[in-house]
Amino acid sequence: MSDWLPSLKTKTPQEGYELAILLARKAIGYTQPSADVREKLRPKYEEDADSLTLASQVVAIHYQTVAAANNYWQ
Amino acid sequence: MSDWLPSLKTKTPQEGYELAILLARKAIGYTQPSADVREKLRPKYEEDADSLTLASQVVAIHYQTVAAANNYWQ
Amino acid sequence: MSDWLPSLKTKTPQEGYELAILLARKAIGYTQPSADVREKLRPKYEEDADSLTLASQVVAIHYQTVAAANNYWQ
Amino acid sequence: MSDWLPSLKTKTPQEGYELAILLARKAIGYTQPSADVREKLRPKYEEDADSLTLASQVVAIHYQTVAAANNYWQ
Amino acid sequence: MSDWLPSLKTKTPQEGYELAILLARKAIGYTQPSADVREKLRPKYEEDADSLTLASQVVAIHYQTVAAANNYWQ
Amino acid sequence: MSDWLPSLKTKTPQEGYELAILLARKAIGYTQPSADVREKLRPKYEEDADSLTLASQVVAIHYQTVAAANNYWQ
Repeated sequence: MSDWLPSLKTKTPQEGYELAILLARKAIGYTQPSADVREKLRPKYEEDADSLTLASQVVAIHYQTVAAANNYWQ
Repeated sequence: MSDWLPSLKTKTPQEGYELAILLARKAIGYTQPSADVREKLRPKYEEDADSLTLASQVVAIHYQTVAAANNYWQ
Repeated sequence: MSDWLPSLKTKTPQEGYELAILLARKAIGYTQPSADVREKLRPKYEEDADSLTLASQVVAIHYQTVAAANNYWQ
Repeated sequence: MSDWLPSLKTKTPQEGYELAILLARKAIGYTQPSADVREKLRPKYEEDADSLTLASQVVAIHYQTVAAANNYWQ
Repeated sequence: MSDWLPSLKTKTPQEGYELAILLARKAIGYTQPSADVREKLRPKYEEDADSLTLASQVVAIHYQTVAAANNYWQ
Repeated sequence: MSDWLPSLKTKTPQEGYELAILLARKAIGYTQPSADVREKLRPKYEEDADSLTLASQVVAIHYQTVAAANNYWQ
């Protein structure tokens, strides 16, 4: 896979949050490399509350990492 | 998306908790940008105990981050 | 919502545990503000082993935060 | 509830693990105070692999806390 | 239960990983002490992808603890 | 099992992420040693959004460990 993660540093807490979203999504790309399949899964997934909460949980875990890497943007 | 997260600092532990709730919800907004769809999911979700507990779990993970960022409001 | 979380400090590890339970429950109150609906969900929830374990998990995550905030009561 | 958690300190890593099990179980007691109901739930729960794994997960989270409180028994 | 966890220290990251697997399994043994029942659950469990992922998650949580205890084998 | 984890150190955040994926997968190999069975599980698993998210969650937990081991590649 090409370079997609040069650093965990971001300028702001919000950019860090967006990086956490990217980190959560990338694992899915590594496991299911077909963009077509991933597109097919999206509609069902995006309209299921528990699926959305589960995805939000993965973002939360990555955000802990990104926030620590940025010393909580202090 | 417009600026919504200028800082992880809050004045009190309770404001930090409310920020954790915001952090948990925002990931859902990034994944399902349609407010209409999110509204449609709400009734079922809000009356399911496991869905509520799962949402509470995401808040708990973010609260770890926010509390650390505020040095536990010591 | 009125003030309910003045501090993460507690006198003992057990009081910290009870605070973690409060933290876990509060997120549910923020998401489902109706006490009536929450009461309605309780019987099913309280008699489902996996629901109870899931709730215990949220307490465990918050307890990490509370314990760290209290320097593990050392 | 009577005193059940005087300290997070234990003499050995294994005693710390057993404390983590206690911490995981206590949250269930707080949520479902009836020992009769908890007994009734046990048979189904103890013979379901995913229920057992979920319980093991809560122990793992508490063990992080207990291990940190004991400076990893170094 | 007899002594099974004298220390969280291991010589290598891989031995630490194997200790994390042991830690994940032990909680199941404490909850379901019957080796016969555990054997009976194994076939279904070992051929269910989500069960395997859930088990992998518990290992991941314990590995955080073991890695911290070993200062990440630096 | 042969040596597969000599170190948690990686040169870049992205290599660390790929190590986290390896760590997530290895636990499945320890639990289900048959590569044939694992292959059989793959198609169903790779086309289920929640299975993919659950797998992404395990990667997120391991990535916390790897990132800490590398001092967040600072």
